[in-house]
Amino acid sequence: MKSKLNIGLIGAGRIGKVHGETIAFRVPEASLIAVTDPDAATAQAVAQRCGIPRVCATADEIFADKSIDAVLICSSTNTHADLAIQAALAGKHIFCEKPIDHTLEKIDLALETVTRHKVKMQVGFNRRFDANFARVREAIVSGEIGTPHLIHIISRDPGPPPISYVKVSGGMFLDMTIHDFDMARFLIGDEVTEVYASAGVRVDPEIGKAGDVDTAVILLRFANGVIGTIDNCRQAPYGYDQRVEVLGSKGSIATENVYPNRALVSTAESVRRDLPLNFFMERYLDSFEKELRAFVEAVLADKPTPVTAADGRVPVVMALAAKKSYLEGRPVKLSEVAAEASLETVSR
Amino acid sequence: MKSKLNIGLIGAGRIGKVHGETIAFRVPEASLIAVTDPDAATAQAVAQRCGIPRVCATADEIFADKSIDAVLICSSTNTHADLAIQAALAGKHIFCEKPIDHTLEKIDLALETVTRHKVKMQVGFNRRFDANFARVREAIVSGEIGTPHLIHIISRDPGPPPISYVKVSGGMFLDMTIHDFDMARFLIGDEVTEVYASAGVRVDPEIGKAGDVDTAVILLRFANGVIGTIDNCRQAPYGYDQRVEVLGSKGSIATENVYPNRALVSTAESVRRDLPLNFFMERYLDSFEKELRAFVEAVLADKPTPVTAADGRVPVVMALAAKKSYLEGRPVKLSEVAAEASLETVSR
Amino acid sequence: MKSKLNIGLIGAGRIGKVHGETIAFRVPEASLIAVTDPDAATAQAVAQRCGIPRVCATADEIFADKSIDAVLICSSTNTHADLAIQAALAGKHIFCEKPIDHTLEKIDLALETVTRHKVKMQVGFNRRFDANFARVREAIVSGEIGTPHLIHIISRDPGPPPISYVKVSGGMFLDMTIHDFDMARFLIGDEVTEVYASAGVRVDPEIGKAGDVDTAVILLRFANGVIGTIDNCRQAPYGYDQRVEVLGSKGSIATENVYPNRALVSTAESVRRDLPLNFFMERYLDSFEKELRAFVEAVLADKPTPVTAADGRVPVVMALAAKKSYLEGRPVKLSEVAAEASLETVSR
Amino acid sequence: MKSKLNIGLIGAGRIGKVHGETIAFRVPEASLIAVTDPDAATAQAVAQRCGIPRVCATADEIFADKSIDAVLICSSTNTHADLAIQAALAGKHIFCEKPIDHTLEKIDLALETVTRHKVKMQVGFNRRFDANFARVREAIVSGEIGTPHLIHIISRDPGPPPISYVKVSGGMFLDMTIHDFDMARFLIGDEVTEVYASAGVRVDPEIGKAGDVDTAVILLRFANGVIGTIDNCRQAPYGYDQRVEVLGSKGSIATENVYPNRALVSTAESVRRDLPLNFFMERYLDSFEKELRAFVEAVLADKPTPVTAADGRVPVVMALAAKKSYLEGRPVKLSEVAAEASLETVSR
Repeated sequence: MKSKLNIGLIGAGRIGKVHGETIAFRVPEASLIAVTDPDAATAQAVAQRCGIPRVCATADEIFADKSIDAVLICSSTNTHADLAIQAALAGKHIFCEKPIDHTLEKIDLALETVTRHKVKMQVGFNRRFDANFARVREAIVSGEIGTPHLIHIISRDPGPPPISYVKVSGGMFLDMTIHDFDMARFLIGDEVTEVYASAGVRVDPEIGKAGDVDTAVILLRFANGVIGTIDNCRQAPYGYDQRVEVLGSKGSIATENVYPNRALVSTAESVRRDLPLNFFMERYLDSFEKELRAFVEAVLADKPTPVTAADGRVPVVMALAAKKSYLEGRPVKLSEVAAEASLETVSR
Repeated sequence: MKSKLNIGLIGAGRIGKVHGETIAFRVPEASLIAVTDPDAATAQAVAQRCGIPRVCATADEIFADKSIDAVLICSSTNTHADLAIQAALAGKHIFCEKPIDHTLEKIDLALETVTRHKVKMQVGFNRRFDANFARVREAIVSGEIGTPHLIHIISRDPGPPPISYVKVSGGMFLDMTIHDFDMARFLIGDEVTEVYASAGVRVDPEIGKAGDVDTAVILLRFANGVIGTIDNCRQAPYGYDQRVEVLGSKGSIATENVYPNRALVSTAESVRRDLPLNFFMERYLDSFEKELRAFVEAVLADKPTPVTAADGRVPVVMALAAKKSYLEGRPVKLSEVAAEASLETVSR
Repeated sequence: MKSKLNIGLIGAGRIGKVHGETIAFRVPEASLIAVTDPDAATAQAVAQRCGIPRVCATADEIFADKSIDAVLICSSTNTHADLAIQAALAGKHIFCEKPIDHTLEKIDLALETVTRHKVKMQVGFNRRFDANFARVREAIVSGEIGTPHLIHIISRDPGPPPISYVKVSGGMFLDMTIHDFDMARFLIGDEVTEVYASAGVRVDPEIGKAGDVDTAVILLRFANGVIGTIDNCRQAPYGYDQRVEVLGSKGSIATENVYPNRALVSTAESVRRDLPLNFFMERYLDSFEKELRAFVEAVLADKPTPVTAADGRVPVVMALAAKKSYLEGRPVKLSEVAAEASLETVSR
Repeated sequence: MKSKLNIGLIGAGRIGKVHGETIAFRVPEASLIAVTDPDAATAQAVAQRCGIPRVCATADEIFADKSIDAVLICSSTNTHADLAIQAALAGKHIFCEKPIDHTLEKIDLALETVTRHKVKMQVGFNRRFDANFARVREAIVSGEIGTPHLIHIISRDPGPPPISYVKVSGGMFLDMTIHDFDMARFLIGDEVTEVYASAGVRVDPEIGKAGDVDTAVILLRFANGVIGTIDNCRQAPYGYDQRVEVLGSKGSIATENVYPNRALVSTAESVRRDLPLNFFMERYLDSFEKELRAFVEAVLADKPTPVTAADGRVPVVMALAAKKSYLEGRPVKLSEVAAEASLETVSR
């Protein structure tokens, strides 16, 4: 077992910078060897901040560097699958931001390549590492709440992204709900077989003109009979709203939002708290660190990654099914979208 | 305007006794004149407890009593519609427990008779009078949370009723969800146009054998575009679970359960509360008083009742649609179950 | 054992009306036979509201009525002790509002008379019957939190009473803290031996001019070594604040305030609740009913009352000691104010 | 203004390691140049972990190193004052763990030297940087709760330290309450003039035999009339309990404990949370980072440190007064312990 993992960072934008800093400052078992970004200045800035010795003009240089063991793919979504394939061909282990791609064809090609070349791949479903959701999973695994019957996931953004982003996002189900699809199957530990999506444009008519929705409830049916809902809205005026509740045969577990402090102010108007942590960078900061630690540890110890490539594929199937359900106004089985045989079981 | 309302109590079982005591001890503007029950001893006991001067052998005697202004119909469900019709024919105002009936034919006949004979009718959707749900309604009416987008209703019983009851209950949608159907349209102030029910047998296989379900999520679509869910389970191990959450354009409002005390115990094991008030008699005690006060006041002041006969009909339509949706595995429009013309708007 | 207790109501002001309605409408085991009040119209109004057959010009008429078993003394404080003495002489059982008197001399005379004439006496420390404080007591008695070490009582009014009232109130310690002194010894189940009062005028300088304080912390030392604090303020801008916390060897128990509803509103400004129930009539409504039920039951069953005459005396001793402590700026032992021999143990 | 601060770390034990890692991994504006510890292996381990180039045999070597701008004094308490004096003589800026010393003589000598040699000094009252307490301070400064009237500080450890530690700790007031004394004056922004300490041995008789107490309530009187309490116990069975509440003329602010997650589990037994973060390393982790950032920033920008040397002195005066109060059973003015002239005002 190697004692230290050499990493190349592909993409130095918002999430790339976060991952770079995490590896540089908080994961002593890994070293950043090289960084690349379409914007050279961006790559240079992250290199300086994180003490990365080498700035590469292209990802190819990173793949060619024999000293690099693994790559973090933090580039734009449409490049994820291609880069993952190239990384696999170069024998690099892969940490890839979600989603792997918006089409199953490219995802399947990437997964096949990864499998064939026996590299490890972890997909960036960081919320699995959040202390709150991890606690819910623990309650289910340990039997603390018995056999799960119902699950409700609330996932609302503080405000909608720019319309320019909405247009290339792949739609709310692929862009936003995908995290919740992953959360649903991670928590319940079983696969969803059918979805029914009820959705609309409530927040901004421009989103509707762009062919997308901004508000939705997706009803899930799991193979084991559990029924679930996902509540999505592009705008929660009070901030980022991320909660889950599971009812089981012995009890329930529900998580509240996370706040910047635990102060309660009582005045002649009300008894109040400050607003919850406002967006994912604050709310999920710890989980970004934990997912990278887990990736580094998995590669070094030659263990399975905690969020496999297959785990990156299923939520895309779910999103495509949700989209079809919304457009056709009826429940849609996942097998209508992807051959059931290719739906692997949840890996944990 | 009369200063005091003379009331006849029909049915002196569990809910009849509660309503009798409320009128006797807490509503000075009304007097209980007579009581009847198929079981004479039951009628006699309530008469003694509540100081009711006359015990009648049948409801007919109550209808024939010219001194009686109004009746409380607290008998078994299958008699509600017939008794309401007889009461209307006798010119008595009617407070009727929910549901009016399990069939639209009998409900429509009752409503027609009530309308023709110009008596007032109020249906026992007591939860509208609960301080928590009333506060949610207020937040919506006042604009405190803006335009509603999403509503979630959680409604779980502490444990399932006896199988003998399940068999005559009309099914969970008509027996249990009916309160939540009323709550949904009461809070949002608009009609549901389509439902999709996902349900199963999770708690007790005997319930399944009796042809019913015990766990369900019903997805609602309102005419105004609001999307809603109702979460029902016949068994919440921690007790009676009754909550609602509404997300609007300016904010959200969510109610928690009600507890017997506000004590927090911290030990080496956990930081904990006692369980919530365990069932509807405790949880909704205040609402039973408020609904009867409202009924007495409406009759005395010749004002509309706060929960009309029409309000009693729509939730039955919703329940029938939910049942159809569950059986056919597809979203069902309410217009498939009842002619749209007969779906009156919410009265409040 | 008599099956029904005949009661005379002495004083039909605010608290007299509450107690009258409770007996009339909620305690079937008792009947109101007569009422008196210095203001005849007040007495008449309560008689009509509560169906009391007889309005007496004076308390003497009530004492002379052989059909009356017990009296509720709800008159002004300065008459409590004299009326209790007269009631005892007439053989009536006594429910007396707190405090019995502001001087130990009159209290001791009343207690002696009550004891000699073997009538029961209960003092109106209603908060013992509040579900929250009762739960704290239960946690201590049951050993749920082990041996108590520390107790903190928070007791703040929404706003100060009129200055005219302050002037005749006997001072904050005798008027307001007296409830908390009772609560401290009730919860801990032991006697306080020493108090140290730190106090000031923070809310209204007029209160200071009237020779009183409006803000105080009283440090308590119990015989068993428990240390306690009472936090009093005449003005909590957010309303009536009534909480307690006890730390024991196995854990702690803390009560929160009681709110009119359990709704949480989240907007762009804050996550908030409505204000707590605003004053004692709302906050302690249930406890008023429970204390009278307990009194009626104790007399009918010839059991000790749950708050004895002695329980009415000790908090006055504590208040006098607190006042002395404040004036002299030093800890004061209760034995400096009253002979220790006369400090009876807590009765429960 | 220098762009980077060179730091020497004196003492590499528990807190030294925390501060070392913070500087190494989270404060890019500072560099660790050297480390020393009486135990060479300890120093070596921290040097390796934090990438510190030089391990010194003694603090003298650090003071002699011209490249070092500032020192972190993390050694045992009895060495703090002497090291601070030496550092000042060597012209090094000082971050010193609390308390500076247990005697005013040595503290005053250290402060005088620091002042004379014009080096900056910050004392390690890290809790001021905790998000919760900072929020309380903000509420007071901003006027959100008006003029403060009352403050309550709850500060309880999960369990007592070893008796060997108790014996050299200087006693609970100097060892544990000292943080709360600082918090009281920091939050209120004014000086305490008098304390009254009520204390006892409740947790472990061995602590009593060692001449110390384990449970106490200290009543504070501020110059501006605010009344406060500090509640200390060496053992809270449910874990580390760190809360504060302030009542002001316009409202109150209260902080709750911090929990490892925001999950609520409801079962047939209770509605419960996991225990709060168990001790200061978890609870105050963020504050350790913030205080060092503030120190580095203050030195680099030549601004006053946020917790001055004088701020390190006053809590010791308060602790000595509390001890005297406890021993003599009476309120003690701080001026009895230290000449009032030397009580500087709060620096912030």
